[in-house]
Amino acid sequence: MERKVKVGLIQYQIKPDWAENVAKVEKLLELVKDGGADLAILPEMFICPYELDLFPRFAEPIPNGRTCEILSGWAANLNLHIVGGSLPERDERGNLYNTATLWDNQGNLLAAHRKIHLFDVDLPGGVSFHESALLTPGQKITVLEILGMRLGIAVCYDIRFPELFRLMALAGADFVALPGAFNNVSGPAHWELSLRGRAVENTIYIAGVSGLAPPDSSYQSWGHSMMVDPFGQVPLHLGQTEGFGVVEVDPERIKDIRARLPLLKQRRVDLYDLRLLKS
Amino acid sequence: MERKVKVGLIQYQIKPDWAENVAKVEKLLELVKDGGADLAILPEMFICPYELDLFPRFAEPIPNGRTCEILSGWAANLNLHIVGGSLPERDERGNLYNTATLWDNQGNLLAAHRKIHLFDVDLPGGVSFHESALLTPGQKITVLEILGMRLGIAVCYDIRFPELFRLMALAGADFVALPGAFNNVSGPAHWELSLRGRAVENTIYIAGVSGLAPPDSSYQSWGHSMMVDPFGQVPLHLGQTEGFGVVEVDPERIKDIRARLPLLKQRRVDLYDLRLLKS
Repeated sequence: MERKVKVGLIQYQIKPDWAENVAKVEKLLELVKDGGADLAILPEMFICPYELDLFPRFAEPIPNGRTCEILSGWAANLNLHIVGGSLPERDERGNLYNTATLWDNQGNLLAAHRKIHLFDVDLPGGVSFHESALLTPGQKITVLEILGMRLGIAVCYDIRFPELFRLMALAGADFVALPGAFNNVSGPAHWELSLRGRAVENTIYIAGVSGLAPPDSSYQSWGHSMMVDPFGQVPLHLGQTEGFGVVEVDPERIKDIRARLPLLKQRRVDLYDLRLLKS
Repeated sequence: MERKVKVGLIQYQIKPDWAENVAKVEKLLELVKDGGADLAILPEMFICPYELDLFPRFAEPIPNGRTCEILSGWAANLNLHIVGGSLPERDERGNLYNTATLWDNQGNLLAAHRKIHLFDVDLPGGVSFHESALLTPGQKITVLEILGMRLGIAVCYDIRFPELFRLMALAGADFVALPGAFNNVSGPAHWELSLRGRAVENTIYIAGVSGLAPPDSSYQSWGHSMMVDPFGQVPLHLGQTEGFGVVEVDPERIKDIRARLPLLKQRRVDLYDLRLLKS
């Protein structure tokens, strides 16, 4: 990683109305751009409420759908790299995915990360969700070069799996953008824990970016979008209200922490082996 | 795992005087036995201060040393399983290890876990420690059957490495005993985070058990011994004072959390592979 990158995190109430969400995001993108952001990150399912029965209704092809068209235009017009949170993708065979897109500041699609680990849980307190009833899981990890850094992309439940984040770090990731939507049970129990844990064990930055749900929604997203640094500190934390913030990913901080706490070098690769089977 | 197991955690100030430590531990073991413990866990380097230059002075062979003799006697006399924290082991070739021993309630040595990941750091705030200057790392993971459960043993810095804990969980561990000694920098930053993170991602219990240091010691152990459950909750937390507590490892809790949050089954073993190279 060559230089500091300014990252904008965006958190807002996601409505069942596509155009209303689009209008809201546009304003927030202008604000993070004003704040100096090089890269903006939107929440998981940023144009449609996080409700299983709404995914097919909002699903669209990538990149030839209305939401990708809007994302590409924002990126080019604002001269801003954007992780287009995620959206329900429908491929040519009719399969649905929970897919995060990455756009460069000229409006080109650089990557589409399909959520690898689908969210199938029955949490204490009555929160049940079964993405696999409807969605197809992704088949590859996503780490690529932009803005002089190695950016990893993962979606929500992907954070639960240390193997994925270790493989991203070993592929050189300096920073992982994680659109997510934990809930009022898993959120207080595990959201910050998971983000900080993965960041520290891999000495990387992670931004977890979540939307909020209207009060009458069946699924209450936890919000609490935050940036976590390679020592597990939290320079930005948005709580559970609408808001945004711009914070730096600093290569000197990564270098300093890795010199002090060289975890990636101290792995016992003579005792255990972790490898990617497909790429 | 067949039934509940009561686990005693023991935390005290570890002095440079072997006999003084032994007398303290004996009283605390009697107290956790009175509290109904089936298994007691002692801190890392439980008979010698956590200072590199003291390790050779306190080092002894396993099982034919004075500390193992004492541990075996306590286990048999108290009818108590004991994880003998760790002690500086000297093998027949003169190599030194940071080794945790496990004793059954008849005083038999069941296992000796040599710390796999040595503690070599230069933390912000001036805490530097380099175990590898003196110690040899362990070459195997430790998971075995006692008291109707699968018990894993790891030592302190081992907690930093998700690969090790995942491999223990995949080897069936219900519970991991982790004698440790984080410090006043890594402790507040990462001790609870690491224990809770590893417990949740593997849906297992973990007990982190640390000693305390006298105020004039060069290395200030963080204490804060705690039991963490498979959902990341903390039923026992000893703070930074001398003390003990007895808490349950409950197979029903593990079963319930794994049914709700089936993380171990949701690993994408078609995409990545984690394996042990030696055993």
